[in-house]
Amino acid sequence: MKALLYTGNKTFEIQQTDQQPLQAGQVRLKVAYCGVCGTDVHIYHGNMDKRVQIPQVIGHEVSAEIAEVGPEVTDWQVGDRVAVRPLQPGAVDPSDHGCRHIGKNLKFIGIDTAGGMQQFWNVPAHTLHRLPESLSLQLGALIEPLAVACHDIRLAELLVDEYVVVIGGGPIGMLIALVARQKGAKVLLSEINTARLELATSLGLATVNPKSQDLVATVETFTNGAMADVVFEVSGVQAGVQAMTQLPRARGRIVMVAIHPEPKPVDLFRFFWRELKLIGARVYEPQDFEEAIALAASGELPLESIITEVAPLSHGQQVFEAIDNNPAGLKYLLDCSQD
Amino acid sequence: MKALLYTGNKTFEIQQTDQQPLQAGQVRLKVAYCGVCGTDVHIYHGNMDKRVQIPQVIGHEVSAEIAEVGPEVTDWQVGDRVAVRPLQPGAVDPSDHGCRHIGKNLKFIGIDTAGGMQQFWNVPAHTLHRLPESLSLQLGALIEPLAVACHDIRLAELLVDEYVVVIGGGPIGMLIALVARQKGAKVLLSEINTARLELATSLGLATVNPKSQDLVATVETFTNGAMADVVFEVSGVQAGVQAMTQLPRARGRIVMVAIHPEPKPVDLFRFFWRELKLIGARVYEPQDFEEAIALAASGELPLESIITEVAPLSHGQQVFEAIDNNPAGLKYLLDCSQD
Ligand SMILES: NC(=O)c1ccc[n+]([C@@H]2O[C@H](COP(=O)([O-])OP(=O)(O)OC[C@H]3O[C@@H](n4cnc5c(N)ncnc54)[C@H](O)[C@@H]3O)[C@@H](O)[C@H]2O)c1
Ligand SMILES: NC(=O)c1ccc[n+]([C@@H]2O[C@H](COP(=O)([O-])OP(=O)(O)OC[C@H]3O[C@@H](n4cnc5c(N)ncnc54)[C@H](O)[C@@H]3O)[C@@H](O)[C@H]2O)c1
Ligand SMILES: [Zn+2]
Ligand SMILES: [Zn+2]
Repeated sequence: MKALLYTGNKTFEIQQTDQQPLQAGQVRLKVAYCGVCGTDVHIYHGNMDKRVQIPQVIGHEVSAEIAEVGPEVTDWQVGDRVAVRPLQPGAVDPSDHGCRHIGKNLKFIGIDTAGGMQQFWNVPAHTLHRLPESLSLQLGALIEPLAVACHDIRLAELLVDEYVVVIGGGPIGMLIALVARQKGAKVLLSEINTARLELATSLGLATVNPKSQDLVATVETFTNGAMADVVFEVSGVQAGVQAMTQLPRARGRIVMVAIHPEPKPVDLFRFFWRELKLIGARVYEPQDFEEAIALAASGELPLESIITEVAPLSHGQQVFEAIDNNPAGLKYLLDCSQD
Repeated sequence: MKALLYTGNKTFEIQQTDQQPLQAGQVRLKVAYCGVCGTDVHIYHGNMDKRVQIPQVIGHEVSAEIAEVGPEVTDWQVGDRVAVRPLQPGAVDPSDHGCRHIGKNLKFIGIDTAGGMQQFWNVPAHTLHRLPESLSLQLGALIEPLAVACHDIRLAELLVDEYVVVIGGGPIGMLIALVARQKGAKVLLSEINTARLELATSLGLATVNPKSQDLVATVETFTNGAMADVVFEVSGVQAGVQAMTQLPRARGRIVMVAIHPEPKPVDLFRFFWRELKLIGARVYEPQDFEEAIALAASGELPLESIITEVAPLSHGQQVFEAIDNNPAGLKYLLDCSQD
């Protein structure tokens, strides 16, 4: 079988590899599509060389069919169509407080262990979620990032008719905006990339470009002075952190979705002054995957529109180069079924 | 009557003033005691000269007896013993979301308008809370800061048996620690002032000095590895902001009580990584005053111990100078009943 291996130094190589024997509790997946996540791009850039085991297959946004069922696996059969929740909880730490999805000893499958950018992939059966027949395998590869959005909105305790501002319209911010709208919220997306702004507009989302418009004034107008009930910080930049405390109403919630590797200045006075809440959100729990699948299957989200390109696995290197050269692109999928 | 006037430039002057006529809805208080708050010390230092109207009477931690009842005041009678909730809500702003106690047009009585460091003080009747006979007027002057602590703990949604770390053992942090313990939490107080540490120890609180002990390791030991359910940041310094994200368990809560005038670096990664929550808390709502009064009247809190000194109103200048020279002192009360 073929696998796309990250070999370090901005390089992927297609290699012919052997299928690994199945361990107890595992299934062998015939991978259909594997999406490229911003984290995969970080790995490609060499920023995570300490965490990945070069050479390594990466990728964690997978749709697949079950090719073989290993020992001690019940509930699953060859041919079942699935999405993978790429989390391997480790030993329980007392500080985890029962939160298995963010446990101290959690391993992220596709980063800490081999990922889905290959034709066949062995994963623990506990990571699988069934995809309904009505859902295409291409959209199935969007379930993982869509589950991130569902998780973020659930932790925000978003209510119908609430005003939402999403800061950052990358794949994750765009999905959060779409799911929030689907839940009945009134959504404004803040983004500085004009192509992404245009896409959002074409999907019927209200948008603002904080480089050319006064963001606070725009939110004031959009909300008739009520300001945002919920702000999602999904930009990962200082300007987003600065904006996030200016936009909420009294007791408004700010959901921290973005990863800020270094501490950044935060206006803590505003937290005191307006009794704001900041809510950290990371990946997903099983129920978020189930919700993402139901939402995708409902056909009510314009998910096709966020797929920029589908390319064969063998074009992996070119796809990562294309992502670097096109900051307007959103979601790139590798078709792993093609030889 | 006598009033202590802040005249700018670290100076207070005792002046003979006329009693103001009562407006509709007001009562005239015969002030018993007025506590000195950190904010009063800021005013004394000249840091708030733009906000106060020099010369001005300040002070907002008041116990009193009603001396006269103005027009349109029902429910109150001459002789009633009261504490004052020094908030004057202004016009409703749509971004207030019904939170009158932190509304955009709120005025803080004793800062934005005349305060309680005088023999007689006219206040709106809606600010009054009745003190039970069993509660001394000295302890009545602690109700305002105690209501801050009750508010912070309510917003933390603190549960019995939870692990609490309080960062900063000034008057507010000390009261938060005492109330949290009273609610059945297991409390550790972090403080760098040795005299304040000794006082906390003498009150039976577990303490840690982060200058001489490893704070994270101490919290690990104190919680048997479970880490803090709730952290209160009450220090107002960068070291507190840095510590606050290291101490909670997964999904732990951090309550931002301290006022940080300037943005400070915050480890936003930890919010994402462990799904932490930051909850801003400011002053109090009526129910917090009622709870503070009930707690104080119960006699179960060692409130006398946090009173450092009681001095006559006429010694106001010396009291502010003493506070500057004694960072170990906690609560200073001015006795406003003495001539
Ligand atoms: N919480 C989680 O579990 C989780 C999961 C996936 C991704 N993430 C994080 O979420 C963030 C977004 O992920 P993504 O894949 O969409 O990344 P992305 O980089 O594609 O999206 C960020 C967007 O923010 C925009 N932006 C930059 N400056 C801005 C500004 N001042 N105002 C408004 N928008 C601005 C950029 O143009 C870009 O479109 C990243 O930090 C990522 O690491 C978190
Ligand atoms: N949220 C509100 O409504 C409200 C109300 C009153 C006061 N406050 C604020 O709460 C804070 C505390 O008020 P206070 O009157 O108790 O002030 P304070 O200055 O007396 O108390 C702060 C304490 O923190 C200690 N400290 C300093 N560095 C420390 C460190 N590294 N680790 C642990 N402790 C450290 C100091 O020694 C001091 O005892 C202030 O910022 C004040 O403005 C807020
Ligand atoms: Zn991802
Ligand atoms: Zn005060």
